[in-house]
Amino acid sequence: MVPVIETAPKQQTLKALSGLRDLVLKGEIEPGDRLSEVALASRLKVSRTPLRAALQKLEQEGLVALIPSGGYSVRSFTRQDVIDAIELRGVLEGTAARLAAERGVAPTKLKAITAVVETLDGVVTTDPLAMDFQRYEALNGEFHALLADLCGSEVLRREIERMTSLPFASPNAFVNTEMGVPTFHRSLLVAQAQHKAIVSAIALREGARAEALAREHARLARQNLDFVLEEQPDLRGKVLALALMSG
Amino acid sequence: MVPVIETAPKQQTLKALSGLRDLVLKGEIEPGDRLSEVALASRLKVSRTPLRAALQKLEQEGLVALIPSGGYSVRSFTRQDVIDAIELRGVLEGTAARLAAERGVAPTKLKAITAVVETLDGVVTTDPLAMDFQRYEALNGEFHALLADLCGSEVLRREIERMTSLPFASPNAFVNTEMGVPTFHRSLLVAQAQHKAIVSAIALREGARAEALAREHARLARQNLDFVLEEQPDLRGKVLALALMSG
Amino acid sequence: MVPVIETAPKQQTLKALSGLRDLVLKGEIEPGDRLSEVALASRLKVSRTPLRAALQKLEQEGLVALIPSGGYSVRSFTRQDVIDAIELRGVLEGTAARLAAERGVAPTKLKAITAVVETLDGVVTTDPLAMDFQRYEALNGEFHALLADLCGSEVLRREIERMTSLPFASPNAFVNTEMGVPTFHRSLLVAQAQHKAIVSAIALREGARAEALAREHARLARQNLDFVLEEQPDLRGKVLALALMSG
Amino acid sequence: MVPVIETAPKQQTLKALSGLRDLVLKGEIEPGDRLSEVALASRLKVSRTPLRAALQKLEQEGLVALIPSGGYSVRSFTRQDVIDAIELRGVLEGTAARLAAERGVAPTKLKAITAVVETLDGVVTTDPLAMDFQRYEALNGEFHALLADLCGSEVLRREIERMTSLPFASPNAFVNTEMGVPTFHRSLLVAQAQHKAIVSAIALREGARAEALAREHARLARQNLDFVLEEQPDLRGKVLALALMSG
Repeated sequence: MVPVIETAPKQQTLKALSGLRDLVLKGEIEPGDRLSEVALASRLKVSRTPLRAALQKLEQEGLVALIPSGGYSVRSFTRQDVIDAIELRGVLEGTAARLAAERGVAPTKLKAITAVVETLDGVVTTDPLAMDFQRYEALNGEFHALLADLCGSEVLRREIERMTSLPFASPNAFVNTEMGVPTFHRSLLVAQAQHKAIVSAIALREGARAEALAREHARLARQNLDFVLEEQPDLRGKVLALALMSG
Repeated sequence: MVPVIETAPKQQTLKALSGLRDLVLKGEIEPGDRLSEVALASRLKVSRTPLRAALQKLEQEGLVALIPSGGYSVRSFTRQDVIDAIELRGVLEGTAARLAAERGVAPTKLKAITAVVETLDGVVTTDPLAMDFQRYEALNGEFHALLADLCGSEVLRREIERMTSLPFASPNAFVNTEMGVPTFHRSLLVAQAQHKAIVSAIALREGARAEALAREHARLARQNLDFVLEEQPDLRGKVLALALMSG
Repeated sequence: MVPVIETAPKQQTLKALSGLRDLVLKGEIEPGDRLSEVALASRLKVSRTPLRAALQKLEQEGLVALIPSGGYSVRSFTRQDVIDAIELRGVLEGTAARLAAERGVAPTKLKAITAVVETLDGVVTTDPLAMDFQRYEALNGEFHALLADLCGSEVLRREIERMTSLPFASPNAFVNTEMGVPTFHRSLLVAQAQHKAIVSAIALREGARAEALAREHARLARQNLDFVLEEQPDLRGKVLALALMSG
Repeated sequence: MVPVIETAPKQQTLKALSGLRDLVLKGEIEPGDRLSEVALASRLKVSRTPLRAALQKLEQEGLVALIPSGGYSVRSFTRQDVIDAIELRGVLEGTAARLAAERGVAPTKLKAITAVVETLDGVVTTDPLAMDFQRYEALNGEFHALLADLCGSEVLRREIERMTSLPFASPNAFVNTEMGVPTFHRSLLVAQAQHKAIVSAIALREGARAEALAREHARLARQNLDFVLEEQPDLRGKVLALALMSG
């Protein structure tokens, strides 16, 4: 007999996964509540097996947690958790940058990330009205994916992927709200200077510098977080990434 | 109807977990092979539900991996993976040490870790024959657990716990083989000097120094790894932690 | 008998010093040539004693060097020397920032440097035409002087003063040429973001971050140096600080 | 007319220099007192010109200071000054190690410093009675001289030379008192592990690690300083390097 858990068609699992992630990220399930598999399966119109696989995946990503009595609940994060997750993203990406500088990078890989940075140069304009934020978001995501892979450590790439799957620790967490806020726009000018400096430091084999730059780059997210929470709390609703943050 | 996955009695899960972890760590299951739930359940004398919970836990720890076709297989690690995991453990513990120094530590917590270091001082003797390695292992484990918790970041503590659950990334990976190898004994003298320096740096609020020390501390594991693989390959069988390493 | 060297009236020494420094910085004396005390004394209209005191001071600053046969010559610096001096300035200012974060700073000192940064905020505008570069230069100089003094180490403050007295290692080395060059203007936006981040890191006791930021801040000078030498060599004559650089 | 200051025969200057340095380091001149050129010239049996050259050299080294009214006095250092000078030595040697790792080192230079470390391995024994401290001191001095020169930066080498000419900031400051003190002997075991790790980090192009190790290496001096002042004040007289320290 082949156990059911292992036969879930991939399509069904993906459907369950994207549906479930959506519910969680939009804050439609109260953090802390025990998730009912029956109710979720019916709501998402999938069977139990793909639902379980989806729950397992979200547990890996840190969006839901196993609870001692069995089953899962949506995790809730304090502001300090969010700060720590951003810090940790910076530490891990910093390690990726440092190891790339220390171990050396194949010319083709260096060319690829340099090309992304150069394309970004055309996107990041001093005039905020001229900026294409959607394009920035796509290229920024690409930059960070390439960076995570630059030193060729699969162990590290996995950790970064796991960490950045937390919505508020994603490199694009605050990009979708950039439009119209001068503070955010100015932070993109600094971010792009950092993108360039990171690649240059790696090419020059300056590991300590590359690590520090990537850490500081992540700090921009924290800076934007502080800005939203302290200076412009009305923006908070617009930052999807903060749906899971309590308090 | 309550789904079975959520009702597994805790005792059964623990039995499945320790049995399964043992099989994996002792290298009794070939890395890469798809694990048969039926066969494992019968071998470990547990039912399917606690077995699945155990598999899920080991997946979190990184000992088994989900495979695309469904189910799990035992992960296999290259020497580079092992090196990277040790590096990452150093990076994460380094972050714990740095944040503790930067954020400040409650006096009771500082007292507790200082006490462990002072007890270790009596255990680490210049005469290897006089050393109680088992006691060292216990105290060393305690030191690292306290360090991970020192800055009070739950996000970070979880990551360190996850990373050090990989056997070769554990702070005690090479301690159980110390006896009789002068290189290992000397590395414990250095390790203990580092334990002291880490706590002192944290107390002095020297974050950069604390971080660097904790990283360097983890490098001793890599040094011992290199020693085993290059200088004394006959020792390899004795290092349980290397059972999962291929090549 | 009181030796003459000790009786030079202060005014005369200052006259000799500023006159001599001017000659050296404007490149009016060939690097490497042995300086004739007789000729210099007559040219600057000072007597030998204050001239010697001035030579001694410039020797401390690194602008002239003692030569083995006795006497002094104007030092000449290669491009690599200039790069290394900028690097070293970053390392020393980074140490000042780190020690301030680690040791803690008196509130009045923190207030003073914060005030300078806030004033700079009004000076650094996204519109280059609206910027008052002279005011920037003055405030920037003040920021760096306060930073060097923040941790209260006289040993360190002296070293930073010595190092930044080399014209190309001064924090203002490339400010006087900023006007009209978009690359330089954009670098000031980044510089001001760094000023803010340095002070914030110190206040948060984040020493590693403060050190890395101050180092990266100095790298802007190197970036501007590379820009002048590689992209716009015609600018070189305008950068007074590069008069001593050969090749 | 050739000015006298420039004609001092080299031999006379060296005689004045070594005589004067001796007086200062042995604490035979009260710090702060204005040095009388007349008295010193007669005491050291040299003429005024070589004496002035010697004073100038010691001023560069930081042992004597120019005083506002003209002339020189022996500098006095507080405990904090000594701590800061040791810190700064670590920072500068750390920079030398980092730049060597980042820029890469010629194989012959790497071979030379590796050879010194290997020779040291035979000198540093776990049995303190078997150790040849004089040989350690010579080889340790050689190690640090080679390290300062490894990256090929003349600017940096000069700064390190200047800084380590302060007796308490010298890499050998606490070596001459090692004999008979178990704490000092144990610190040499750690020091030698650091020597090895520094060279290995440089060879592996790990700049951040090399820098941190060299800094930590200098911290051993501070550790020994604290030990002398707090645990065994009777040793203080034996540490020549502390003659200039007040309080």
